Amino acid sequence: MTQFAIGIDVGATSIKFAAVSKAGEFLSETREPTEGEKGKSAVVQNLLKGISALMAAHGHESLLGVGVGVPGVVGYNGIIKTLTNIPDWHDVNLAELLQSEMKTHFGIVPTVVVENDANVAALGESAFGVGKPFKDFVMITLGTGVGGGIILDKKIFRGSTGAAGELGHITIDFNSDTLHAGICGSIEGLIGHRQITAFAQKLLQHTPSSLIVELCGGDLSKLEPKILTDAAKAGDQVALQVWQFVGEILGVGIGTLVSVLDVRKFVIGGGVAGAGDFVLKPTLEQAKRFSLEAMHEGLEILPAELGNRAGVMGAAALCF
Amino acid sequence: MTQFAIGIDVGATSIKFAAVSKAGEFLSETREPTEGEKGKSAVVQNLLKGISALMAAHGHESLLGVGVGVPGVVGYNGIIKTLTNIPDWHDVNLAELLQSEMKTHFGIVPTVVVENDANVAALGESAFGVGKPFKDFVMITLGTGVGGGIILDKKIFRGSTGAAGELGHITIDFNSDTLHAGICGSIEGLIGHRQITAFAQKLLQHTPSSLIVELCGGDLSKLEPKILTDAAKAGDQVALQVWQFVGEILGVGIGTLVSVLDVRKFVIGGGVAGAGDFVLKPTLEQAKRFSLEAMHEGLEILPAELGNRAGVMGAAALCF
Repeated sequence: MTQFAIGIDVGATSIKFAAVSKAGEFLSETREPTEGEKGKSAVVQNLLKGISALMAAHGHESLLGVGVGVPGVVGYNGIIKTLTNIPDWHDVNLAELLQSEMKTHFGIVPTVVVENDANVAALGESAFGVGKPFKDFVMITLGTGVGGGIILDKKIFRGSTGAAGELGHITIDFNSDTLHAGICGSIEGLIGHRQITAFAQKLLQHTPSSLIVELCGGDLSKLEPKILTDAAKAGDQVALQVWQFVGEILGVGIGTLVSVLDVRKFVIGGGVAGAGDFVLKPTLEQAKRFSLEAMHEGLEILPAELGNRAGVMGAAALCF
Repeated sequence: MTQFAIGIDVGATSIKFAAVSKAGEFLSETREPTEGEKGKSAVVQNLLKGISALMAAHGHESLLGVGVGVPGVVGYNGIIKTLTNIPDWHDVNLAELLQSEMKTHFGIVPTVVVENDANVAALGESAFGVGKPFKDFVMITLGTGVGGGIILDKKIFRGSTGAAGELGHITIDFNSDTLHAGICGSIEGLIGHRQITAFAQKLLQHTPSSLIVELCGGDLSKLEPKILTDAAKAGDQVALQVWQFVGEILGVGIGTLVSVLDVRKFVIGGGVAGAGDFVLKPTLEQAKRFSLEAMHEGLEILPAELGNRAGVMGAAALCF
């Protein structure tokens, strides 16, 4: 049977699992609830359920290892320092927990690697997605928050303690009155999902006839990147302005990353990736305005390719 | 005789040379004019003069190599792409030029390593200065401009093309009307030497009785970091405010570097290092305000130790 790794993407509400071959074939997938509110052992049992399902399908003799992406801070030793939106996880050695459970249930002790989910997504794009041709690139994922992963020499760059790549907290407007995670004028505080929605709402006060309102069924709390993109495609001025704004903010941050890291390739993930040039064009223009001309050669802003599979595929890649 | 390397620090007006032992002993030094306006070969001849003087003093059989720091962009291959304030240096292989001249004059072909001067200063602090205990740190040097060097795992981090660490161009206030090197609201555009002077002048319009005016002999074009520090020590309010401002701006940029690189040690070089806590305290406070609390452990802002020897000592360290 094909050798495979199990890639796991732990989210606040559900856990995604996939069996992935070394060549990046997506063999199969499954999903379990997270149930973080029931405590650590409930989450571990849900992890085991998904792992069991994939091992039954693909044979545990072909298992190369288990990779897990988690929404939180992971130290160099693989120990989870803390998770975002999942309570009660402090200084947890999840790899050891899973290995001991797998020994009990399946009689094997596989390699288990645990890593921050934004780093994992970047690794996924590096191993199997748009990042494949590049030695160095930075991935920025826009969602509820703005996350990041830095790939240098095809590997995750983790910094002094393992927490590098907190790109949402880059400050581009320190006098701003936005305050997010305690930081003023950060990228996340300007273009996190809620901030984008609030910006659209502000614009809609002056342009109530926008297609956006129609596509949301009149309820702006349902505003999603896809709706903005559909409206932009139809020429809706508000939607175009929102993507322009998102791109400009993103571009300033990327300009700083060019100056600091001398990286020239940037991959944009999350729902915003579907907006294509509506957001990528202003991003590139602004990234150039906010970095030295001598550093523009080869500068590219690219949409992520793996979509919501980046997490599980990157997690599998942790084992290869 | 003690084995030594020759460290060379090429500036716009003069070239500094030092013989440095592997243990970091500063054996001797000399200086020549740069004479960049006379063209490349004049500069190379001046380089040779300084090298000859040190080789005569220390014996060329003990020479371990020649390291050169230059004010400009150096590619991975050691080729100088361009120099700042020294005309006519484009795509120059200075290492090869020096090796061929040294072969002709001394009959030897030593190792010659060429590197950007801000990176070299950081390497100097890493090998022989305040950075010695740290695997990773970032050095920021305030002078006419704001330069930087990133040390990861005790080595210069150079990025995709060799230009990493352009820290002066980090943008912290993208809506600002300051424009420097084409970039709005960059650190260099806010606290480069001229900008600091302009800020002091603005404050002095309202506080003309400041000690600063006296220490400059009434001529503010003579304003230097040392004068500001002396005035601050005497309790001068304008001087204190200037250092506070410099520290705050620097701190915002450092906050971003903490988020991106997860580096916790920062070394401040240039005349500003002498200002001590007048500038380092607000820098640290602001760095904390502009980064996640979870990333504050071990965060320190330290003054550089090697002063204007960082360039030659770091250049020598290129050979060790």
